[in-house]
Order: sequence, then C-alpha cells, then structure tokens
Amino acid sequence: MRFSQLLGQLSQVVENTPCDLAADPEIGGAAALDQATGGQLSFLEPGNALAAALAATGASAVLLPVDADLQHQASERGLAWVALADPRLGFAEALEALYPRRPLPAGVHPSAVLDPSVQLGEAVHVAAHVVIGAAVSIGSGSTLHPGVVLYDDVQLGEGCEIHANAVLHPGSRLGRACVVHSNAVIGSEGFGFVPTAAGWRKMPQTGLVVLEDGVEVGCGSTIDRPSVGETRIGAGSKIDNLVHVGHGVVTGRDCALAAQVGIAGGARLGNGVILAGQVGVANKAVIGDRAIASSKSGIHGEVAAGEVVSGYPAIPNRLWLRCSAAFNKLPEMAKTLRQLRNSAN
Amino acid sequence: MRFSQLLGQLSQVVENTPCDLAADPEIGGAAALDQATGGQLSFLEPGNALAAALAATGASAVLLPVDADLQHQASERGLAWVALADPRLGFAEALEALYPRRPLPAGVHPSAVLDPSVQLGEAVHVAAHVVIGAAVSIGSGSTLHPGVVLYDDVQLGEGCEIHANAVLHPGSRLGRACVVHSNAVIGSEGFGFVPTAAGWRKMPQTGLVVLEDGVEVGCGSTIDRPSVGETRIGAGSKIDNLVHVGHGVVTGRDCALAAQVGIAGGARLGNGVILAGQVGVANKAVIGDRAIASSKSGIHGEVAAGEVVSGYPAIPNRLWLRCSAAFNKLPEMAKTLRQLRNSAN
Amino acid sequence: MRFSQLLGQLSQVVENTPCDLAADPEIGGAAALDQATGGQLSFLEPGNALAAALAATGASAVLLPVDADLQHQASERGLAWVALADPRLGFAEALEALYPRRPLPAGVHPSAVLDPSVQLGEAVHVAAHVVIGAAVSIGSGSTLHPGVVLYDDVQLGEGCEIHANAVLHPGSRLGRACVVHSNAVIGSEGFGFVPTAAGWRKMPQTGLVVLEDGVEVGCGSTIDRPSVGETRIGAGSKIDNLVHVGHGVVTGRDCALAAQVGIAGGARLGNGVILAGQVGVANKAVIGDRAIASSKSGIHGEVAAGEVVSGYPAIPNRLWLRCSAAFNKLPEMAKTLRQLRNSAN
Repeated sequence: MRFSQLLGQLSQVVENTPCDLAADPEIGGAAALDQATGGQLSFLEPGNALAAALAATGASAVLLPVDADLQHQASERGLAWVALADPRLGFAEALEALYPRRPLPAGVHPSAVLDPSVQLGEAVHVAAHVVIGAAVSIGSGSTLHPGVVLYDDVQLGEGCEIHANAVLHPGSRLGRACVVHSNAVIGSEGFGFVPTAAGWRKMPQTGLVVLEDGVEVGCGSTIDRPSVGETRIGAGSKIDNLVHVGHGVVTGRDCALAAQVGIAGGARLGNGVILAGQVGVANKAVIGDRAIASSKSGIHGEVAAGEVVSGYPAIPNRLWLRCSAAFNKLPEMAKTLRQLRNSAN
Repeated sequence: MRFSQLLGQLSQVVENTPCDLAADPEIGGAAALDQATGGQLSFLEPGNALAAALAATGASAVLLPVDADLQHQASERGLAWVALADPRLGFAEALEALYPRRPLPAGVHPSAVLDPSVQLGEAVHVAAHVVIGAAVSIGSGSTLHPGVVLYDDVQLGEGCEIHANAVLHPGSRLGRACVVHSNAVIGSEGFGFVPTAAGWRKMPQTGLVVLEDGVEVGCGSTIDRPSVGETRIGAGSKIDNLVHVGHGVVTGRDCALAAQVGIAGGARLGNGVILAGQVGVANKAVIGDRAIASSKSGIHGEVAAGEVVSGYPAIPNRLWLRCSAAFNKLPEMAKTLRQLRNSAN
Repeated sequence: MRFSQLLGQLSQVVENTPCDLAADPEIGGAAALDQATGGQLSFLEPGNALAAALAATGASAVLLPVDADLQHQASERGLAWVALADPRLGFAEALEALYPRRPLPAGVHPSAVLDPSVQLGEAVHVAAHVVIGAAVSIGSGSTLHPGVVLYDDVQLGEGCEIHANAVLHPGSRLGRACVVHSNAVIGSEGFGFVPTAAGWRKMPQTGLVVLEDGVEVGCGSTIDRPSVGETRIGAGSKIDNLVHVGHGVVTGRDCALAAQVGIAGGARLGNGVILAGQVGVANKAVIGDRAIASSKSGIHGEVAAGEVVSGYPAIPNRLWLRCSAAFNKLPEMAKTLRQLRNSAN
C-alpha cells in the first residue's frame, strides 16, 4: 500500500501531524532502520542509537519521533516520513496493516473430538486433532489451533486464541481475548504434597485458574491451580515463555513477566508489576504496584510499590549496583584489610 | 456430605478423637479459613498466621490442631470441628472425599493409533489422538490422556497416569502409580556431543530412564536418557513444572524438586533431598540424604547429608545468611576501609 | 558384532592403530567402565577418574587413550582394546554401530492432516496426527513424529527430524539436518508489547526464525520470531532442553546452550560460544567467539572473544572465583573491620 494509505491506519496521525509524503512510495514490508531496503517502512525512537542509520538506510519511509533535525534529514534524503509522539506504537499499527492476519474459518475440523456437552459460541475455529472434554464452553470468535486439549470444566471467553498443543485443565476460566501460546499448560495441579511417614501424599488441587481479559501466556509456560480458591492473573497481563506460576498466586492488571520467571505458591503481585527474565518469587511474597525486579533477582517478603529491586535476596536496585561493584573488589578489600590488621598488630 | 460422614474418611479420626459436631453441617466444598463461606470446610495448622481468622471465618466446619483454646473458640462460634495431629493431612483426605475424581472408562478411543504389538493391561484408558509405538506395555488401570505420544520401547507399570500431550521416548521405564503431567518429556536424548574439528558430533543416547513407583513429573519437565546406563528417579519422588533432569542423574526416594530446578548430567541425589525453585546442580555433584537447597542456589561438588545450603556456589545456609547480610553493607565497609587506610598512611 | 568388526566402524582406526583383539569377543552393548558386564564395550578418556575401574571392569572390550600402561593393564586382564586419540569420539561411533536407529518408513499416516499445498520431498515420514498448514515445504528424508504441528509458511531442509508434539510457527526456516526435540516451539511470537495508556499493546511479530544446517533444539525449548528481520541460530549449534531464545537473537556457528539458558531479545553470540545451565543473557548483549559463561551467570553488555565469565553481573571467571571465596569470608572481614575501627577511635 502507498505510504499515504498506511498513514490512515495510524491512530496518532491527525490533521496536522507533521509528515513528508515524498513520492508517496509503495510500502510492501517493514524492517529495522539499518536493515531496511527499498519499499520498506522503518521507525526510529527518540534517543535511539540507530539515529545514525537514518543517513544510510535503504528504507523508503520512516516513522520518526518529533525532532526537527531528523525530519529535515529524512526529507533531504528523499524519504517519506511522519513524526509521531510514539513511533513504536505507530510501527505496531503499521505492521498490523502490512501483515494482516488471515482469519481462520469458523468450523470444527472432522478430526477434532468434542464431548457432546461442549458449548461453542459463534464463529469458533476448532482445528485438527483438538480434543475437548465435558462441560466446556468456548466464547464466540475463539480459535483453537491443532492439537489443543481442553479437559472437562473449562471456560473460554470471546475471542480467545489457544495455540497448538496447549493444554487447559479442569477449573480453567479464561476471560475475553486471552491468548495461550503453544505448549503452555493452564490449570495443572499445584505442587502440593503433605509429608507423611509413608512419603509425600498429594494434596488434591481442586481450585480454579482465572485468566482475566486480555491475558497472554507464553509458550511452554505453566499456571497451576490451587488446592482451594484460585490462581488469578489480572487483566491485560502478559506472560512470556517458560514461566511458572504456582498455585494460588494472584497478580494485578497489566503485569509483565519475562521468560523463565518462576513465582511460588501464594505470592501476590500488584498492578503493573514487571519481572525481568529468570526472576524468582518465593512463597507468599508480596510485590506492590508497578514494582520492577531486574533479571535473575530473587524476591522474598515484601517489595514496596514502585520499587526497583535486584539481586538475591532482592534489595533496592541502587544499593545493589553499589554492592555488586564492591563485590568485584572484594579480593582487594581483603588484601587491604590484612595489611591494616598486620600493621595494627 | 455431613461433617460426621466426612470424619469417617479421615485416617486420623479414631474413637476418642476430640471433636464437636455442632449441628453436623452439610459440607459441600472447602476453602481457606479466611475465604470460606457457609457449607465449606477449612483447616488450621499449628502456629499458622490464619489462627486469627477463626474468629471471623464463614466456614461451617474446621480441621483444627490439638489446641484447647482453638477448640473452645470454634465451639463458641458454633463451628463443627475435629482436632488432628496433622490437620493438613486431614484436609488432603477431606478434599479427596469432597471432590472425588471421576474415573475414566476403560477402552481405547477410535482416534488413537496403537502399534499392533502394544500390550495393554486391564482397564486401561487410552484417550483421543494418543499414539503408541512398538514394544510398549501399559500396566493395568493406567490412563493416557489425549495427545500423549509413547515412542517404541516404553514400559508403564500399573496405575500410571500420563497427562495430555506428554511424550515418552524409547527406554522409558515407569513403575507403578507414576504421574507424568501435561507436556512433560521423558526419555529424550541427553545433551551429549563430542567436540570435533568439524563441530559437535552427537553421542548416541541409548540408555534408560527409570521412574520408580509413585514418581510424579510436572508439566513441561524433561528427563533425559543417558548414552549408556540409566537415569533414575527414586520411588515417591515428586518433580514440579519445568524441571530439567540431565542424562545419568540418579536420585534416591522421596526427593522433592521444585519448579525450574535444573540438574546436570551424572549428578547423584540421596533420599529425601529437597531442592527449592530454580536451583541448579552441576555435573556429577553429589547431594546427601535429606539435604535441602534453598531457591536459586547452585550446587557443585558435594553436599553432606542433612545439610541446608544456599547461594552460588552453595554454602551452608547459616553462613550464607550472614554473608548476604554483609554483602548489603559492602559499600559502607569499603568506605570504612578507605578511611582506615587513609588515616594509617 | 565381533570387536574386530566394530573396529571397522571407528574413523580413527587405521592400519597401525595399536590394539589387542584378545579373543575377539562378541560385543552386544556398551556401558560405563564401572558398570559394564560381559559382552559390553566401554571406554576410558585420558586422565579420567575411572582409570582405576579398568582393574575390575566386567567389560569385554575397551576403547583406551594412547597410554602404554593402560594398554598393558588391559591386555593383562585379557580385555580386547584399541587405543585412540579421542576415545569418546570412538565410543560415539561404536554406539551408533551397536544401537543402529531403525529408519522410519516413508509415507504419510492416514490420520495426518496436510494442507493440499504442502510440498513433500522424497522419503518423508509423516507420523500419526501430524498437522501441516499451507505453503509448507519439507525436505527429502525428513521425519515428522506424532503430533507435530507445522503452521502455515514453514520450510524444512533435507533430513530434518521433528520430534513428537513440537510446534513450528509461520516464518520458521530450517536448514538441512536440523533436529527439533519433543514439545519445542519454533517461531512463536516474540514478547513485544508497547506500553500505552490502555495497557500493553502487542507489537506484531512478523519476522523469521532461521535454524541453519545441523542445528538441534532441545525438548520444550522456545525460539521466538521477531517483529521484523530474523532470529538466527548458526550452523551446527546445539540447544539443550527448556532454553528460551528471544526475538531477534543471532548466534554464530557451533554454539552450545545448556539447559534452561535464557537469551533476551536482540542479543548477539559469536561462533562456538558455550553457555552453561541457567545462564541468562540480557537484551542486546554481545558475546564474542568461543566465549564461555559458567552456570547461572548473567551477562549484560559485552563479553570479549575467548573470555570465560561467571557470576551476576558476569565478570571474568578468575576474578569471580576470588570474589566468591572472599564473599564467604565477609562476616569475618566485617568483624575485623569493626575491631580496627574501634581501636582506631
């Protein structure tokens, strides 16, 4: 599509948005600024290190930040451009326009195996080799990719997408527009065992797993159901690949859990909490709204709202940076200490 | 069921067990003490912080510890109760009674694909889209959920349960009553490669993976087979989600491995070893009976029986707690050290 | 097969390779030196701690290093042996000869569901319940095990093997002789979201995942596709189980990533990089050729070619070993420091 048409797809483009259509190039794809070739769209964020790439990019059009110098430079090079407060958001919208998703046709593949009690909404796509148990309801417009297994007693809201070979266990309750990626497992039994003289005895896990509207769960991630009560992921929260969420965990809205995060049973996260890769959260820890944990940190106890923590056990990030710097000088410190002690004797 | 009936299901209830049936309420479910509502059973453990919740609980019946004050308080509130040495164990048994598992009917779903050589015990349930290779035997009373794949040369004992989309590779040998959760992989090839001038050359992995009786493997966990010999998980051991067990690892009985633990090839664990979440165990490390590693610790070399270790590299927990506390004061220590050195000059 | 026949399968055995056929025993299997029994082959590497086991091994034949003492000892015990520069490589070749893999017959199982547009090379094995989307091509001699799902727009080179229940998403491009193990996911959407006032908005992930020739991806591992451009794993690289590779990561040739490694978006690895278990690599980190990171280390920024790093944040291994040793003495150091300060006052 022409660049001018693409602009019509961007929510930030209004009447007086600064832009230069140049020759209004045909845009057939998108790429990073330093990799783009003719006919491609790229974008540049404020302060991004790629700014230098603008001088040499092969892109035909660029989404720029609001920056007169960059705009001037782009026009000089004959590039089509538009200046946006949030070029990254514009790029997301442009990618949706340039790479539209092929909607899958409604219907149930003949190889799928559905219990007669299944309640299907309108326009549901059930792919090959899907298996659905009893007392399951699927909201309208949902898509189940091949090999998905829904055990008994599962409920999906409207517009959910469950990717290939994912498994949802009894007690799974998904809101609207949830996405479960390939090979993820929702509602599996929490890891609850009672120590007895005869070894570990399983505590039955009979509770629910609730994914509120718009939750996304990455490939291979697992969200366990509790013995009683519920595990709950707040609306709009996004979970990356290979994340483990233990039984009875509750998170607020719009949390982001990066890959390989592990959250032990009963932990509580507020709204907008961000956990970077490989973070661990202990049993019953409590993390306040908008707190951030940097990668590999391990959280016990409480983290206050808005705090940024690092390390294991996690401490405020600023303190941790200083402690880590000092750690690297421990051999020197030990040496100095020995010298002082010896001269003191 | 009535509370009095439920008591009949609890192994710890004998003739003179202290209890108060109150109005012998009908019990239809269970919940945590601070979340329970009418008609629900709850429980309280000795010293549990929830004790205060007893005064306000909506539960109709409670499993209490042996504690005269709590018993008196429950009777005052009109709650039905029983006092048990291990209320948690009682709660596990009560959940089993209140939420009985629907037995799956014996039989092979017509969409399942079985090699003609498969030996099925009695009352085996083979669900839709299961695939079973040659030279496989399945013990009586076992359940294979939808999408399970058993390669050739797999043996399951009696009463095993393999959850949806799990995969068992050649050389997998499961004892009685093993549970493999969804998307777990047993018997995959160990990560063995020989460095050569032409790159990594695969070491064939031809050994066995043995899960002794009562072993449970969590969702998405992987247990590799070795080049020769066996990988062995001791009877009664429980493995949580997303755990990796490398080739040739051997564990004793009743170990518990929490989520995202990783154990490298050839490590040896004794009986009753507990590894908390995200613990790593290096190649050929040796961990003694009943040792415990706290979350995120990394173990090389040897850990003595009964020891509790933490940190990376793991050291005794008590020492680690003191070292970690000192770590957080490193900037101060460095400053003091500078001052002392300066005044010494 | 006879030991003499087996020697014919070993690439390092030439005319004058030192050996002793002894009674040229029939070899029916292989085992570790301290576990082998009659009729089995074993091996011993230079400097291996198992050398003492040679005196008592039940093996009938041994692959030895070039070491006159060991050779003499083996002959004294009546063992058949051959001396090789790389006994481990010989053992890999011997295992291939002793445990030949049964080739799977060409053909498509009737339960598989293939889009009419699928292009199958010669001698492709498509097992039960496989699902293949539109615009997919499968190279000759490839094997798809049961339950594999290929979305639309996937390309596999010749001789690929995709294990049970693995999933390949659009944009996956596999070279020749790639192996994807059970339940791995290739080409899933990268974890890209734009923060907006209304919550996280998905950045479409429209790029490619390229696995060059000979790449192997472990069970449950996930390799994400980027928004634009490509994620690329260099030829001959081997990835263990439960590894996460983020969107836009590029690795060189012959890398080895151990279990539970996580690599965040946009990181760059050179050739021959080795990451031990549970290592984390941050966004856009750059790791030079043949660098090694020991287990659990966390890498930000840059690691120079050939460097060995440890810890979090990762520092040179030698420094880290000294710092870690000092860490364990922090309580003593703090005490000494207090004493010096007190006596200075």
